[in-house]
Amino acid sequence: MADYTALSFDRVHITGGFWKRRQEINRAVTAQAVYDRFSDTHRFDALSCRWHDGMEYKPHIFWDSDVAKWIEGVAYLLAEERDEHLEALCDEAIAQILGNQAADGYFNSYYLAVAPDERFTERENHELYCAGHLIEAACAYFQATGKGEFLAAMRRYADLIYRIFYVERSAAFATPGHPEIELALFKLADVTGEEKYAELAKYFLDARGNNEKDIANPAWGAPYNQSHKPLKDQTAAAGHAVRAGYIYSAMADEASHFSDAEYGAACERLFENITERQMYITGGVGSTNIGEAFTGDWDLPNLTSYAETCAAISMVFFARRMLKLRPDSRYADTVERIMYNGALSGVSLDGKKFFYSNAMEIDPHLYAHGGRAYLQSTERAEVFDCSCCPPNVLRFIASVSDSFYTYRGDTLIVHQFAESSADILGAAVTQETSYPADGEVKIRVSGKFRTAAIRVPGWCSSFALSVPYMLKDGYAYVDLPESGEVTVKFDMSPQMVEANVNVRENTGKASLMYGPIVYCMEGKDNGGDLQSLFLTEDASFTTEPSDVLGVPIIKAKGFRRRSCEGLYAPLSSQFEPVGMTFIPYFAYANRGVDEMTVWTKVLPKYDHAD
Amino acid sequence: MADYTALSFDRVHITGGFWKRRQEINRAVTAQAVYDRFSDTHRFDALSCRWHDGMEYKPHIFWDSDVAKWIEGVAYLLAEERDEHLEALCDEAIAQILGNQAADGYFNSYYLAVAPDERFTERENHELYCAGHLIEAACAYFQATGKGEFLAAMRRYADLIYRIFYVERSAAFATPGHPEIELALFKLADVTGEEKYAELAKYFLDARGNNEKDIANPAWGAPYNQSHKPLKDQTAAAGHAVRAGYIYSAMADEASHFSDAEYGAACERLFENITERQMYITGGVGSTNIGEAFTGDWDLPNLTSYAETCAAISMVFFARRMLKLRPDSRYADTVERIMYNGALSGVSLDGKKFFYSNAMEIDPHLYAHGGRAYLQSTERAEVFDCSCCPPNVLRFIASVSDSFYTYRGDTLIVHQFAESSADILGAAVTQETSYPADGEVKIRVSGKFRTAAIRVPGWCSSFALSVPYMLKDGYAYVDLPESGEVTVKFDMSPQMVEANVNVRENTGKASLMYGPIVYCMEGKDNGGDLQSLFLTEDASFTTEPSDVLGVPIIKAKGFRRRSCEGLYAPLSSQFEPVGMTFIPYFAYANRGVDEMTVWTKVLPKYDHAD
Repeated sequence: MADYTALSFDRVHITGGFWKRRQEINRAVTAQAVYDRFSDTHRFDALSCRWHDGMEYKPHIFWDSDVAKWIEGVAYLLAEERDEHLEALCDEAIAQILGNQAADGYFNSYYLAVAPDERFTERENHELYCAGHLIEAACAYFQATGKGEFLAAMRRYADLIYRIFYVERSAAFATPGHPEIELALFKLADVTGEEKYAELAKYFLDARGNNEKDIANPAWGAPYNQSHKPLKDQTAAAGHAVRAGYIYSAMADEASHFSDAEYGAACERLFENITERQMYITGGVGSTNIGEAFTGDWDLPNLTSYAETCAAISMVFFARRMLKLRPDSRYADTVERIMYNGALSGVSLDGKKFFYSNAMEIDPHLYAHGGRAYLQSTERAEVFDCSCCPPNVLRFIASVSDSFYTYRGDTLIVHQFAESSADILGAAVTQETSYPADGEVKIRVSGKFRTAAIRVPGWCSSFALSVPYMLKDGYAYVDLPESGEVTVKFDMSPQMVEANVNVRENTGKASLMYGPIVYCMEGKDNGGDLQSLFLTEDASFTTEPSDVLGVPIIKAKGFRRRSCEGLYAPLSSQFEPVGMTFIPYFAYANRGVDEMTVWTKVLPKYDHAD
Repeated sequence: MADYTALSFDRVHITGGFWKRRQEINRAVTAQAVYDRFSDTHRFDALSCRWHDGMEYKPHIFWDSDVAKWIEGVAYLLAEERDEHLEALCDEAIAQILGNQAADGYFNSYYLAVAPDERFTERENHELYCAGHLIEAACAYFQATGKGEFLAAMRRYADLIYRIFYVERSAAFATPGHPEIELALFKLADVTGEEKYAELAKYFLDARGNNEKDIANPAWGAPYNQSHKPLKDQTAAAGHAVRAGYIYSAMADEASHFSDAEYGAACERLFENITERQMYITGGVGSTNIGEAFTGDWDLPNLTSYAETCAAISMVFFARRMLKLRPDSRYADTVERIMYNGALSGVSLDGKKFFYSNAMEIDPHLYAHGGRAYLQSTERAEVFDCSCCPPNVLRFIASVSDSFYTYRGDTLIVHQFAESSADILGAAVTQETSYPADGEVKIRVSGKFRTAAIRVPGWCSSFALSVPYMLKDGYAYVDLPESGEVTVKFDMSPQMVEANVNVRENTGKASLMYGPIVYCMEGKDNGGDLQSLFLTEDASFTTEPSDVLGVPIIKAKGFRRRSCEGLYAPLSSQFEPVGMTFIPYFAYANRGVDEMTVWTKVLPKYDHAD
C-alpha cells in the first residue's frame, strides 16, 4: 500500500483570511469559554477523585474525555503560539491527573471516585474512550510544550491497558463500547515509536464484532457500536455516528500503519457509502437522534437532521487518514465540505456557543407544541450535559491545517487552500489567496519538490492553471516551474446543487453553494415563510461583501407562492417576484431563533406542450 | 337558537350505488369479522366478570366500550334489516351484561372483576367512557329491536352515575378523563324523554376544566382531555383528538338541547379552527401520535400523520350535530370529506381489516431502520390491543345516512347525495343518482315540504339546477315544483387542490380530487419513487372505470425528475414525460405494502423572463 506522509498542522501556519480569523476567535474566546463552562460544571474538580457518596457534582463517566479534549485543543494552540495563561490551566489539570493516577497507571476520575472496584467491567461506560482522549491529549501536550510527564503517565496507563486487554485478557469485555482509544493508540505509537501500542490498537480493531466476550449495546444493539460483524467485513456505515467515525479512522490508521489492504478496502467501501449515500450536503452524518446514528441509504431528513458536530469532525479524521493511503480528491473534498459547513456550524461566530446537533431546516412554529417527535436545536448553548462537541470544535479549528498537505518522494499534494506558509522538510510552501472568498490561489514551492498535485474541488466545474497539468483522481499534477510558482483559479460563481432524487425531502429543491460553502436562508432576511419561496432554474445570483469571515452573502430574484385562502382550495399557482438572501450555513442561528433552510424549492423550465 | 330536526339513518334507506355496496360489505363481512376478533381476544368473555388473579386474559379498562360499539353497530344493521344470527350474538352479550350488573346498576367488566373496591376513583380509567358506549348501545338496540331490557339496565346505571356524580358528588373526580358519556346521556334523554340525563350531561360539560376535583392527565397534561379551561371558553382544538371530537359533539348537543348560544358559539369557533387549520384533506385530525392529539394550526405532516380513524368519525359526529343548529354547508362538507376519505380509509375494501392511524404518505424504505421517530402504519390489521376503530367503522358505515337530511317546518335540507329513499313524517324523499361516480342527482320530494335546500359542495365550482334557486350558506334553496322533482348536476371533473402555504409539507404540491373523493398515488401503479413525480399546473386528466365501489381511477400525464448521479451534483432539471395513475385514497393499501402519497408535486407555469 502506497503511503503518503501527512504534514501535521504545526508545520502549516495559517497567515490570513478565513481560517486565520476563525483561529483567532478560537484562541481568544473559545479556549477560555469551554474552560469556564467545564469549571462551572465541576468537570475539572472531578480530577481530584475525591468525590464520595453524599457529595454534590458526582463525576460522570465521560467527563475525563471533555477535559482531555480541551487540553488537546489548547495544546494545538500552544504549538502554534505559547500562551502562559492557557498553559498554566493545562498544567493544573494535568497535575491533578498525575497526582491521582493509581500506582498501576490507571486513571479515570469516575471509576476512581465512584466505583473503584468496577474497573473494566462495563463495556458501555466510556472508560477506554476517556483513556483514548487522555492519551491523545498527552501526545499533543508533549508535542506542543516538550513537557513529558503527562505523556509518560498516559504511557503507563496504556501499558496497563495493554496488559489487561491484550496480554491477560482479564477485562469483562474485549473491545470498548465507545471507540476512540484505537486511533489514540496509533497516535501514541507514532509519538513514542513504541510498536506495542499499534499492536493493541490492531487487536481492538480485529476483535470488534469478532469475539465472544463483548455483549451488544443493551439499548441499541450491536450495530450501535459497529460490533455487528468484523470491521473488515463492514460495507455500510451503521450505528452511532461518532463511534463510527472514530473506529473508521482507526481502521484507516491500521491500513497505513500495517499496509493492510483488507482494512484499506473496508475503509474505501465505508467512505463511499457515507459520502455517496448518508452524508448531508454540509458534511453532517448520523441523520437520526435515535441512537445518534446512521440510518440507511438516502435517509437525510431536514427538519429532524441530527448531524452531531462531533460526528462531522470524526468524518474529517477519517477522510484525513484516507489521504495517507492515496491522494483522491473525494477524501479532501469531504474534508472541505465538513470544515466549511457541518463542523463550523457547531460554533457561534463569537466562539462561545455550540450546536451539538445541526439543523438542515428550522421552523420555530413547530416548537410551540410537542407534536413532532424530534426537532432540531434552534440555538447554540455554552455547555451541554454531554458536552463532547465544544472541545472537539476547539481542537478541530486549532488543527484544521492538519489536512492541507501530504507528500511522497518529490511530489507535494495540495489538498486545501488558505493563506498560509508551511515548512516541509526544509522546503517552504506558501499559499497566497483569499480563498474561499475568492477562487485564486498562488502556490509557491521551494526546495525538494519537483511535482505538485493540486486538488480540483468536486464542486468546481471550471478552473484554470498557470502551467500545464494532468488530471488524476481529482488532482491537477504539474511539473513545478523554476520559480516554484503555480497559480490556480477556481470559478467561484454561486451554484445550485441538487440531491439525488432518492433523498425524498430534497427532490425539486436546490442548495446554494459558493465554492465549498453551503448557503442557507434565514427567515429574517427573507420575510419568513421560507417554505413558500422558490428559486428558478435559471436564477442569477449576485454576491455582496459581508463581515461573516470575509465570505459574501448571496442575493437572487425568486418567487413567493401566494397562498390560497383557508386550508384547501382549487390549485391556483400564483407567484410574486421576491428578493432572496442567502447566508453561509455556518453562520446560521447567530441572530436569535429563526426559520432556516438549507434546501430551497426550484421552479424548473419544462415544456408545457408535452 | 334555531333548531333543525335531523332525520335518523333508519328513516333513510340507501338503495344503490357506492354506499349500498359499502354497507353490504359492512353487514356481510365487517360485523362478523369484528365479532370474531373480539371473541378471539376474550373481550366477550370478560363480560362474565369472572376473571381473578392468576387467570389469563385479564380484562382491560376499555374492553366494554369495544363490545358496546360492536353491539351498537349491529343494532344499526338490525334497524335496517333484522338478522337472526347477529341478533342472537348481541342477545348473548347483553345477557352477560345484565346478568352481571351490580344491584345498584353499576356495570364495568374490568372494575367488577379486577378492582371492585376502586369504582370511580381513577379519572383516566375509561369507566364513564365505557358507560357511555354501553348507554349508546342500549339506546340503539332498543330502537332497532324494541327489546327494552338492555336500555332499562343502562338507565339504572345512568341513574347511579347521576346520583354519584351529580347529586352526591362522591366520586373521586368530577368529569371523566375520556369524554363520551356526555353525548350518550343526551341520546338517552332523547330516547327516554327523561330530562335528568341531559342535566347530568350538561353538568359534565360545565364542570370540565372548571372544578377543583379533577386532576390533569398525569402523562399529557390538562389539554389532553380538554380540561385546560372551561369548554365554553375554548377556541382551538387541543389534546387527544377522539376525546375532543366526542366532547365537542356533546357541546353541540347541549347547544341544541338547551338552546344555549354560548356553547353554540364555542362549537362554531372550535369547528372553524379544526376545519380551517388542523384537518387533513382527508378529514383526518390529530396529526401526531404523541398523545394521539391535535398539535396546532397548520401542523399537518404527511409521513407522520396520525389521523386516527375514530377521530375522523368523531368529527362526523360533531359536524352532524352542528347541522341541527343551522344549515351551513361547511358542516356537511366536512361530513362528506370524512365519509369518503379519512373514515373510509380505516377499513379494507374487503371489510376485514382496519387502520387505526391513517397515512398521508408512505415510504416503505424508511421502515427498514429505526431512524424516524414515528412513521405511519403501512397495512391494516384485523384487531388492535386498543381496538376502538373497527367497531367504530362498523357503526359509522351502518348509520352513515344519519347525516343526509335535516328539516324545519316545510323546508327540507339535503346535505348528502346517494341513491336512496327516505320517509320523513309521511313525506317520501328519493334520490336517484350514481353519486359520487357521477354528479347528477334527481331528488323527488312528496308531501309536506314546500322548499328544499340542496347543498352545493365546497369542492364544486360549477353546477346546474333544474329549477331557479337562491344560494345561502352553501345551500341552493328552491321552491319545490308541483312534481316535487329537482335535478342538480355537479361538475365532477378531477381537480387539483392546494393547501394553504402554511402547511409547510404541501407547498408546491396538489392533491387530486374527484368530487368529494381524495385520490392518491401508490408505487405499484406509478413505477415507484413517487417523490420524483410531478404533475403540471395545466395537466389534463382522464377517468377510467374501476371496480373500486364504482368510482373511477384517474390518469394524467406528468413528469418524472431524472436524478443526478451520486448524492449531490450541480442542478440539472431533467424531466421525462410519464403516465401517472391515481386511485381513491380510501382504497390505498389494499394490494400489499407500498409507497403512497396524497400530495403530488406540481410544476407551475411562471414567467422566466421576470
